[in-house]
Amino acid sequence: MWARTGENKLLKIGIVGASGYVGGELLRLLVRHPDVEIVSASSKTHSGEKLSRIHPDLYGFTDLKFEDITPQEMAGKVDLIFLALPHGTSIKYVPELVETGVKIIDMSADFRLKNPELYKPWYGFEHGYPDLIKKFVYGMPELHRNEIRNARYIATPGCIASSSIYSIAPFLSLKLSSDIINVDAKVGSSGSGSGLDESKVFSERFNSIRAYKPVGHRHTPEIEQELEYASKKKVKIALSAHSVNMVRGILTTSSIYAESDELNLWSLLKNFYGNEKFVRLIMDKKSNYKYPDPKTVIGSNFVDIGFAIDRYIKRIVSFGAIDNLIKGAAGNAVQSMNIMNGFEEYESLFMPSLFPV
Amino acid sequence: MWARTGENKLLKIGIVGASGYVGGELLRLLVRHPDVEIVSASSKTHSGEKLSRIHPDLYGFTDLKFEDITPQEMAGKVDLIFLALPHGTSIKYVPELVETGVKIIDMSADFRLKNPELYKPWYGFEHGYPDLIKKFVYGMPELHRNEIRNARYIATPGCIASSSIYSIAPFLSLKLSSDIINVDAKVGSSGSGSGLDESKVFSERFNSIRAYKPVGHRHTPEIEQELEYASKKKVKIALSAHSVNMVRGILTTSSIYAESDELNLWSLLKNFYGNEKFVRLIMDKKSNYKYPDPKTVIGSNFVDIGFAIDRYIKRIVSFGAIDNLIKGAAGNAVQSMNIMNGFEEYESLFMPSLFPV
Amino acid sequence: MWARTGENKLLKIGIVGASGYVGGELLRLLVRHPDVEIVSASSKTHSGEKLSRIHPDLYGFTDLKFEDITPQEMAGKVDLIFLALPHGTSIKYVPELVETGVKIIDMSADFRLKNPELYKPWYGFEHGYPDLIKKFVYGMPELHRNEIRNARYIATPGCIASSSIYSIAPFLSLKLSSDIINVDAKVGSSGSGSGLDESKVFSERFNSIRAYKPVGHRHTPEIEQELEYASKKKVKIALSAHSVNMVRGILTTSSIYAESDELNLWSLLKNFYGNEKFVRLIMDKKSNYKYPDPKTVIGSNFVDIGFAIDRYIKRIVSFGAIDNLIKGAAGNAVQSMNIMNGFEEYESLFMPSLFPV
Amino acid sequence: MWARTGENKLLKIGIVGASGYVGGELLRLLVRHPDVEIVSASSKTHSGEKLSRIHPDLYGFTDLKFEDITPQEMAGKVDLIFLALPHGTSIKYVPELVETGVKIIDMSADFRLKNPELYKPWYGFEHGYPDLIKKFVYGMPELHRNEIRNARYIATPGCIASSSIYSIAPFLSLKLSSDIINVDAKVGSSGSGSGLDESKVFSERFNSIRAYKPVGHRHTPEIEQELEYASKKKVKIALSAHSVNMVRGILTTSSIYAESDELNLWSLLKNFYGNEKFVRLIMDKKSNYKYPDPKTVIGSNFVDIGFAIDRYIKRIVSFGAIDNLIKGAAGNAVQSMNIMNGFEEYESLFMPSLFPV
Repeated sequence: MWARTGENKLLKIGIVGASGYVGGELLRLLVRHPDVEIVSASSKTHSGEKLSRIHPDLYGFTDLKFEDITPQEMAGKVDLIFLALPHGTSIKYVPELVETGVKIIDMSADFRLKNPELYKPWYGFEHGYPDLIKKFVYGMPELHRNEIRNARYIATPGCIASSSIYSIAPFLSLKLSSDIINVDAKVGSSGSGSGLDESKVFSERFNSIRAYKPVGHRHTPEIEQELEYASKKKVKIALSAHSVNMVRGILTTSSIYAESDELNLWSLLKNFYGNEKFVRLIMDKKSNYKYPDPKTVIGSNFVDIGFAIDRYIKRIVSFGAIDNLIKGAAGNAVQSMNIMNGFEEYESLFMPSLFPV
Repeated sequence: MWARTGENKLLKIGIVGASGYVGGELLRLLVRHPDVEIVSASSKTHSGEKLSRIHPDLYGFTDLKFEDITPQEMAGKVDLIFLALPHGTSIKYVPELVETGVKIIDMSADFRLKNPELYKPWYGFEHGYPDLIKKFVYGMPELHRNEIRNARYIATPGCIASSSIYSIAPFLSLKLSSDIINVDAKVGSSGSGSGLDESKVFSERFNSIRAYKPVGHRHTPEIEQELEYASKKKVKIALSAHSVNMVRGILTTSSIYAESDELNLWSLLKNFYGNEKFVRLIMDKKSNYKYPDPKTVIGSNFVDIGFAIDRYIKRIVSFGAIDNLIKGAAGNAVQSMNIMNGFEEYESLFMPSLFPV
Repeated sequence: MWARTGENKLLKIGIVGASGYVGGELLRLLVRHPDVEIVSASSKTHSGEKLSRIHPDLYGFTDLKFEDITPQEMAGKVDLIFLALPHGTSIKYVPELVETGVKIIDMSADFRLKNPELYKPWYGFEHGYPDLIKKFVYGMPELHRNEIRNARYIATPGCIASSSIYSIAPFLSLKLSSDIINVDAKVGSSGSGSGLDESKVFSERFNSIRAYKPVGHRHTPEIEQELEYASKKKVKIALSAHSVNMVRGILTTSSIYAESDELNLWSLLKNFYGNEKFVRLIMDKKSNYKYPDPKTVIGSNFVDIGFAIDRYIKRIVSFGAIDNLIKGAAGNAVQSMNIMNGFEEYESLFMPSLFPV
Repeated sequence: MWARTGENKLLKIGIVGASGYVGGELLRLLVRHPDVEIVSASSKTHSGEKLSRIHPDLYGFTDLKFEDITPQEMAGKVDLIFLALPHGTSIKYVPELVETGVKIIDMSADFRLKNPELYKPWYGFEHGYPDLIKKFVYGMPELHRNEIRNARYIATPGCIASSSIYSIAPFLSLKLSSDIINVDAKVGSSGSGSGLDESKVFSERFNSIRAYKPVGHRHTPEIEQELEYASKKKVKIALSAHSVNMVRGILTTSSIYAESDELNLWSLLKNFYGNEKFVRLIMDKKSNYKYPDPKTVIGSNFVDIGFAIDRYIKRIVSFGAIDNLIKGAAGNAVQSMNIMNGFEEYESLFMPSLFPV
């Protein structure tokens, strides 16, 4: 059913930075959400233009226009604000926003790291609000559902971080022979935003495999933090990120140095995730898709997880595949919103991927 | 809301030929449909295998397996059958199926053409059931909604036919200077089915623009039939079909030899389509997508329509863009099913496209 | 053999506007040309940077840097100048350049049209140099070889124009039932240049079929001019141009309203092209590539030509496939240079396409 | 110069298994080679068909047809045989072929591994010809040029092996903190051959990132062997191979656990490769291609090498980018042939990549 007769009061929401791809995906998910009303979508550059000019998928679903409005002004009109802003920008607005009583779901990294000391080395700025950090919950429902339920402030996970954490955490109960875990990430172009620069021009980017962040990727401390949270073990993530010839999707391939057998590993996964609705274990060796593959999750809120055992090297190679804009960003944000507001957790999120595409 | 408390009796449906891309798309749309229950999905080749092995998007939505079952056997278990079979195959089953009282939505061409004489020249076989043809309604809701409401048998339109008819019909009230209309179709690979042959291998097909049916395309008589139905004019369609470097989507570019101005043409379109939910007129010249483009409809049931005026040649160039598997196949089938069974017409179909992808 | 002991004096060449894709392709072809020496490559934006920063294929072949130098200054150092400039820009430099005695190969449209009156309606400027136009030869060797041999000034054909002219001209000796010829062009992204704008960003452009110039395409008068030259008939070209999901390549599909049979059409083609080295007739119906397809010419100087006969509509559907940057631009320029300077005509051009890619 | 007046006797060559992509690339390189004559190209499946039906790039360069001929029969007509056969097949023919006196360049793995014991665990068969193995030289010119010069039998490197060895070897003189080196390989579809199977169908493969060999990849022992040869150190390669959404190209990303600084690493690379013509060091941080990228080598015989320093993890991340069919297969084979026969080493190989494509 695509619309609801609004017997209940709808949650009023606003989106700051709504013209980017993450903002657009939020809008795509929320225009059909029966429990919310999209009240405001801000953008400096596109102020006054219809949302559907920039996000043509919205044509037919909303006549809303982008507003040039400050987050504080927006807070006056809504119950919940999504901040879809670059790193280092959210932090400029959040301190005043919390004064307004509005709920906040921040899609940037500015409140993801529990240890404020980490902002300087990884993001290049001193984080002046350690107390505020404590009020934010890391918006990964499968790990933090209870905290989210009681939260007013959510910091949603990074896209590569999501895929990595989901696919590594269950295996950390194994005895590790190294504390380093290699993660190779392959990411579609939408992971690098809608901004304009020469290297993004189609002719320059098509057929390319670009190592855009082979070392020092900023999702590293966030992955380490959550893996420690989930496993009580400290590991170090050796992450290299590449963009590949497609628009949506992430595959992370991780080398976990440990020994085990197949049966045990499937058990670990099943125990770890139980009946989680959005986690799928990829076990069918007769499918064209023997291991997780972004192709089979594009357009959905699923994270697909699988593994292979390397007896020669004595490692587990684990895979996580997500749609970077959904389970890697807007999907987890909406799922967190649903939990936090007492809505059906899967509302507007439980849909098959678009296959084939 | 992603599921409905089933207070009403659900319509039992079955799909014959469920392992192809059209069958898969039907399943993708129907697994969340609150008014139906998928009872049977047949496939000879994949009998006994889970649907999700072939259609990985269904993993998490159904545990159903493909059955090797005849359409007649299936009819005993269901209220409505979708036939997702090749041309010339449906006709073998339909005569007996109509005896069973089951409703039929045939996705092949076998009952699309009102004039049985056309089957021999265009499809290579004599159509032995002219009386049965009369019982079928052409499943294009925007043109045949009332007939569909009272139908038991539907023949859904071809994919290129859909895009062509939608984007040409409104303009035929213009004074035409030629009765020939040129249609150039560009189609994603899913339009040519899931079957195996060397020319479909990725390395052979990537970066290709293949004129796979430059003359004699079988959708021709169906387009002509419906355009005559809509306009009371006989035109001839000069259709050339190409497959391009993508999986989903069709763009048809049509040359209609007539003179007019922009205002008048927009009026024609608006009058013709009124408030049709799934027809969008593409008018925004400041968008990146000034004309209809498959990119903006992929994953949706929309047909996007637009045009340009060629004053030099004195023609209207009109465009239709659809997702070939949805508005070009399974989407119109489900929309017809909804109408015919008294469900909400837009149920399971009104969703934004997946953008960007 | 990849290099020649330079017993002869090398032709000194310069390229104005060398940082674009056409300039880059010229450089790619010329760095191994045994009879020329690349003396200067100009670019305002990239002055001082190595050519290989912008054209990474050149790394290992030249250490030359872009210069910010006027065409006139360049003329003082070279024997022949290629102008790889936008339309309307070449014309600003040519009048003074001809004073210097330098040979000119202009890749823009500024001297392609023999009738100066056509510049106003199609390009938006009055062409003030009708006498200069007369000195330029249209650089399509298969049609103008003798004139090119004696020319000092060449205007190279447009990319869509090339594909259209090559694939239509031979058929114009047929009796035409209409003077309108429909041409549908599908073009890779490199056809729209290396400039920066939002609609070119990978995420916006991938999986798109964009009708970027459905009417009023500027190659129209040039196609009409050359077809009249080749056939002594006046036709009107109804051209619609689309960009598709790839970087290199053009396919033009043309509807020529005439009747004939296969044998006769192959004869026409063979007679028209004789032993032309760079024209291939695509006749093999057992190949994966039954009709011309850009995939089989990418990276080569070939134009592939083929056709289908539409007995229903009484038209010939003819196809031309080229690499837009080679046979559609730099290849014809180099071939013209070779002829005009008495070099081996095929030098640096006779290479197989890169297949598969 | 594209052809040579054949004053010298040409080397007669034959290709066994000429219908695959590796065979096709060999033909593409050799049709213009001035020192060889292609005498025979064998294929069981395509016997009697023109080479250009399967390899459309060859149309215009040869009228040769595939022959159904045994390697032994071919040996009677040629001076040198290329075996472009699957692993485990070459070994059936080589023992008899060496009796005939013909030179052999084997593109399979059957004679790459110096230690015959490795065939059982990695390839599943006992290698019964340890003495023959000794006669084969590993055809990587940059490491084995002198041996190749005097060889009659060459085993060419695997594609992923090439990219890995080239990009890792120079760094092994560093003090390693682990003997495991992680290699993540991303490969275009042509790396998995031209054979037919459902998972290769375009609609199934487009937009996919497929972990086709995440553990146990057969190039592992060959990489370890050559790295030991080059560095006198034993390392273990933890290789995971993925196929990505393109046809040509490989990027390998390797984690070498060692500390160093940029200056030192560039020195290592320069010292290791000196003036090697086909090795390029990618150092330009202002380019769109800051690190090696298949996009900039497609169509060429180059291997591009670069690195990043991870101070957090204390590793060097090194990159190798090649065209898998050229430097990863046919290019090294032709380069070896050139050296072994006293031809100019770079003949038919020194050409810029096709950029952009």
